Amino acid sequence: MTLTGQSFIAGQWRGNADNGQFYAFCPQTNERQHQPFFNATQAQLSEAIAQAQTAFKTYRRLSYSQRAVFLRNVGEELLALGDGLIETTMLETGLPRARLEGERMRTVNQLNAFAEALEQDLAPLALARQDAAEPGRAPMPKPATQLRYLPVGVVAVFGASNFPYAFSTLGGDTASALAAGCPVIVKSHTAHPGTSELMTRAMARAIQRSDVPDGVFSMIQGADYALSHQLVGAADIKAVGFTGSLTVAKALLETIHQREEVIPLYGELGSVNPQVVLPGFAKEQGNTLAPALVQSLLMGNGQFCTSPGLWLLPAGEDEFEAAAIKAIEAAPSDTLLTPRILSSFERAMDALSDNTNVTRLARGAQSQPFHANAHLYACEAEDFINDASLHEEVFGPSALIVRYRDMAQLLRVVSQLEGQLTASVHGSKAEIAAQETLIDELSYKVGRLIFGQMPTGVEVCGSMNHGGPYPSSTDVRSTSVGLQAMTRFLRPLCVQC
Amino acid sequence: MTLTGQSFIAGQWRGNADNGQFYAFCPQTNERQHQPFFNATQAQLSEAIAQAQTAFKTYRRLSYSQRAVFLRNVGEELLALGDGLIETTMLETGLPRARLEGERMRTVNQLNAFAEALEQDLAPLALARQDAAEPGRAPMPKPATQLRYLPVGVVAVFGASNFPYAFSTLGGDTASALAAGCPVIVKSHTAHPGTSELMTRAMARAIQRSDVPDGVFSMIQGADYALSHQLVGAADIKAVGFTGSLTVAKALLETIHQREEVIPLYGELGSVNPQVVLPGFAKEQGNTLAPALVQSLLMGNGQFCTSPGLWLLPAGEDEFEAAAIKAIEAAPSDTLLTPRILSSFERAMDALSDNTNVTRLARGAQSQPFHANAHLYACEAEDFINDASLHEEVFGPSALIVRYRDMAQLLRVVSQLEGQLTASVHGSKAEIAAQETLIDELSYKVGRLIFGQMPTGVEVCGSMNHGGPYPSSTDVRSTSVGLQAMTRFLRPLCVQC
Repeated sequence: MTLTGQSFIAGQWRGNADNGQFYAFCPQTNERQHQPFFNATQAQLSEAIAQAQTAFKTYRRLSYSQRAVFLRNVGEELLALGDGLIETTMLETGLPRARLEGERMRTVNQLNAFAEALEQDLAPLALARQDAAEPGRAPMPKPATQLRYLPVGVVAVFGASNFPYAFSTLGGDTASALAAGCPVIVKSHTAHPGTSELMTRAMARAIQRSDVPDGVFSMIQGADYALSHQLVGAADIKAVGFTGSLTVAKALLETIHQREEVIPLYGELGSVNPQVVLPGFAKEQGNTLAPALVQSLLMGNGQFCTSPGLWLLPAGEDEFEAAAIKAIEAAPSDTLLTPRILSSFERAMDALSDNTNVTRLARGAQSQPFHANAHLYACEAEDFINDASLHEEVFGPSALIVRYRDMAQLLRVVSQLEGQLTASVHGSKAEIAAQETLIDELSYKVGRLIFGQMPTGVEVCGSMNHGGPYPSSTDVRSTSVGLQAMTRFLRPLCVQC
Repeated sequence: MTLTGQSFIAGQWRGNADNGQFYAFCPQTNERQHQPFFNATQAQLSEAIAQAQTAFKTYRRLSYSQRAVFLRNVGEELLALGDGLIETTMLETGLPRARLEGERMRTVNQLNAFAEALEQDLAPLALARQDAAEPGRAPMPKPATQLRYLPVGVVAVFGASNFPYAFSTLGGDTASALAAGCPVIVKSHTAHPGTSELMTRAMARAIQRSDVPDGVFSMIQGADYALSHQLVGAADIKAVGFTGSLTVAKALLETIHQREEVIPLYGELGSVNPQVVLPGFAKEQGNTLAPALVQSLLMGNGQFCTSPGLWLLPAGEDEFEAAAIKAIEAAPSDTLLTPRILSSFERAMDALSDNTNVTRLARGAQSQPFHANAHLYACEAEDFINDASLHEEVFGPSALIVRYRDMAQLLRVVSQLEGQLTASVHGSKAEIAAQETLIDELSYKVGRLIFGQMPTGVEVCGSMNHGGPYPSSTDVRSTSVGLQAMTRFLRPLCVQC
């Protein structure tokens, strides 16, 4: 589809080469693409923020059903982009068609799920409480009080490279903020600027069809970090939705901490998502568990934030390890999202190979240049405990088996873990029931605790939590997936009479 | 009652003069008291934090009903301190007996309200959701997911000088954190260290009676700011409850922002709590409203954070103003909590007297030295809008009438306001119904919007919100009063199977 390379400032497409430009990358060819994208100017961003603040005063007063209609229209217009969207994103990300088609549907479903919650008054009802007046109470009458929830104001959204639909321009953060009543300014991800432009085109059509003010959505293109810092530092921005790396989150937090009013940055970062394999289960079902873990690891070529990167396995489980080695050696190689991610992955593989505490058990074939191939490593639990470098996330298709000797050592490994988005426990019911302390310890390390299932595949539903203790996210109190994500952009108001 | 001046470190009374000492102040005599209080050492504070973290692993696994029994025991032991507690606090704060007896009962009621919520499974049930599995769903089966809430970890509490019971050692922050399952470390307020010691004595007895670990509560005495910064900077501290000034909150936030894991500081600060008097109501009921506002202003001699310091009144309401002047002139003077608060108040009165935009309408007699007497000032709306110094809170018995010419000007005044804990609207139902835009604008400035009532007197109930947009608090998403206060110290966990 034809692209302009421009930003979308409160209803207007704006931008030209005067302020510099950048290009999308094509992972398949390892070359940059031809379409230039223009860096937005500071003035354009300021205008977007001012218009969003003006729009807030109208948008926040729309009825829930008006907001729901808007969200459904966004989903419809997104689907109406058709195959041109998929093809643009395939070029920009190297992700396969089936995966992107699935993610597109999930993204539409997210928008519709928030619409449905608004239509059923679910979101506010789940939170609101009230207390009746008691005029005759001594020594003081009791007033009538009612707890309501108001949108916090304009929200800045930074999407992720690994989910160009579901966690980007019109993804979960945007949907939940708009559902809450907050205008949104998206800083487009430079890894898929064409996808962002098309998504924004859908949003522009939805705004025209719906009775909402233009300023409710702007999209900023730019490869200049200063724009991101200007955005999170602006006084009218009241919250930030962010999906990406700890490094970038920290840089944005530094700017946020300079503000007079410090605002929340909801940073969904990443983790190694430990897979705890209990001894009985390893013996009885290791043969089937091992290939299932490899399959989960290979989702998006290891670029899911819930990718199972750390497997805690009893020592001496040769059958399990043999099955895992076989699956890894048979794994197809594939591109990664950006050249930076590819080079980080290659550096991480070199470091693991050089680490004398670690053995490489297997790797898949690299079928083409610029492909990342699957890797499987192993180390002893004691070495893992003592080597902090092994606790770090590797973004890409690599897993580390940590061999534990007994349950006491497993508990020590778990208690040393950093915060995680998820962990899975693989064991029989009886085996799990006998490990109360281990399960309790693991609960306090994660945002989602999974029994007998893979961590990849985050269900979009009311009881989902996608987030976790630091450093897997920057705000353990919140989720970026599911209906509760709306609460990040709401705040209480007590009305008393 | 006999005091030791020591800190309470996980079950042990500790401290001596080696690390310096400080004294409580007596507002009535304007002299320091005789009992020395010993600065805790860094090592003692570190030990308290380490023991709290150890206690967390036990305390978090207690049943809700066990936690409820503990909270009720704390309340019982607090009451068992008897009149000695009241007398100690009267000396330290200058607050009158009746007020302190009322606040003591409120503090016990708070503890019991959380106990009751735990016994009825109210707190978690109000939040938890679940979704059933759909094993046959295509293309992927839907897992069963359940949303639970876990305590965040050890909580640091900084109490306020103006509510030595309800917002201090065993006040709302401590009660809500303990109810949530979090151990607490209180940094005692130097304005009432004897009160803190007695409260801690009650807590120590409650811990002994209940089946909870010693480390669940520590209390640190100290006049050295370094202790406060050590506390909020410690890696095991996961949230901070704070009631006090913006200046101190900012200093603590600076330390918190240096942490690897940035944690929430729930700072309940203060505000001017605008009283919007609509024209019809001013004419019809100004005579009764004016003395009621003065009475509310004089609660705690103007040292309530919900004190009505700003009255937005139609110009030309001479009857209202005359009634207010009469009430102010008849107002008794009284002590303020600390010499610093008294000198700040005196400076603020001087600044208002010197401000050429402002007229002093009235002041009460100062019946004794070291007393603060009531003051009433007035200015025009336009001058208020242009003079930021008039927007600042004055801590003490002083109010400012802002005279507005018409509803458009009133709306402009409201839209210029900073964030507030509360605002009241005084008007008939019909008059209020006609001001939808004004009410909407005011809603977004406050944490509690009150119709036809005074802002002082915060009801402790499930639908209360005590907090508000910055700078009235540092986290608009939360309340420090009422059952929802517990949610500040909880975080979601999704359990999937």
